[in-house]
Amino acid sequence: MTNNKVSMAVIRRLPKYHRYLKEMLENGINRISSKELSDVIGFTASQIRQDLNNFGGFGQQGYGYNVEDLYNEIGQILGLVKTYNTIIIGAGNLGQALANYNFASHGFKLEGMFDINPKVTGLRIRDVEIKDMDLLEEEIKNKNIDIAIICTSRDAAQSVADDLAKYGIKAIWNFTPVDLKINNHEVIVENVHLIDSLLTLSYFLKEK
Amino acid sequence: MTNNKVSMAVIRRLPKYHRYLKEMLENGINRISSKELSDVIGFTASQIRQDLNNFGGFGQQGYGYNVEDLYNEIGQILGLVKTYNTIIIGAGNLGQALANYNFASHGFKLEGMFDINPKVTGLRIRDVEIKDMDLLEEEIKNKNIDIAIICTSRDAAQSVADDLAKYGIKAIWNFTPVDLKINNHEVIVENVHLIDSLLTLSYFLKEK
Repeated sequence: MTNNKVSMAVIRRLPKYHRYLKEMLENGINRISSKELSDVIGFTASQIRQDLNNFGGFGQQGYGYNVEDLYNEIGQILGLVKTYNTIIIGAGNLGQALANYNFASHGFKLEGMFDINPKVTGLRIRDVEIKDMDLLEEEIKNKNIDIAIICTSRDAAQSVADDLAKYGIKAIWNFTPVDLKINNHEVIVENVHLIDSLLTLSYFLKEK
Repeated sequence: MTNNKVSMAVIRRLPKYHRYLKEMLENGINRISSKELSDVIGFTASQIRQDLNNFGGFGQQGYGYNVEDLYNEIGQILGLVKTYNTIIIGAGNLGQALANYNFASHGFKLEGMFDINPKVTGLRIRDVEIKDMDLLEEEIKNKNIDIAIICTSRDAAQSVADDLAKYGIKAIWNFTPVDLKINNHEVIVENVHLIDSLLTLSYFLKEK
């Protein structure tokens, strides 16, 4: 079903399909054509057919797509077949905001938060205690953590990432403005560069 | 210098160039070849030459790029030629985290924060007072606000966006998981869908 040649651009569109299909399911919509999907998602119908063909094409001529099947298939492709254990490193404003985000409903369980600042260690956010960084290695191993979310200061980010790689973390979700360099190519890094998104906005503002 | 045919993919890469060039400048690097730029940024040298050619090509054969010139040119392309006045709608954890982010150093000045919750109105974050939503229209007009950052709940997002469009906001930076529908095509919307980024991460985790 999966295909290693699928382009990054397609992969980046899949979560959007997933999000819209979830909404449709919640609204009781069972069946949809690529044309209707196009109207709500904003990609062309031909783009949608092409995208979904990458994964075996679940549509049927004259019927369209079964929303629930498509939602489940895309969920599987996206790896939403198990619960991922996550931790947050850096429990400042952003770390606490992310802890309050409801990622658990998507299958990402928050198993720990870590900080070096004694003013926040010991606090609990949504029943998760903020612990001292000294406990990081032990907790990663004991709790079988898959994903670490880095919300530290810019200066701390690279050394935290080095530690995480050493402790066997499989994936890093990076919210700092640093492009992390990880020698271990087994570790997946996904960057959220907020400033890049903001600069794209200012580009379009200027173009007007 | 600018070219309307520049693809979205190129535009999305520009902030990354900008970020790296800034670091080089801070480290006293004055001149760089596309090969060296490639080594640090991770795009191919040919990709870099192509990207920068879109904007008139600032490199010189046998010399490479002047870092400061390139940094300034890209900054201009990205619209970083003035200060943008911004406000944050929704002063919960995420709104407060963003208020503490140092976007001002990039030319984005936080001029106000708004919430409906009396528990947070009146508080100050970095000298900016959180005000009641009733004051939104007046403040947008008085303070000449360019960009509104939406950090409200999912349910409030669309109606907040409708109000913002009505009050003359030019651009919306949307942190809610809602794909906003704005009838006024003059309003630019840039979405930060955190969950999409997380699902991309789980895709790669599963692929391993």
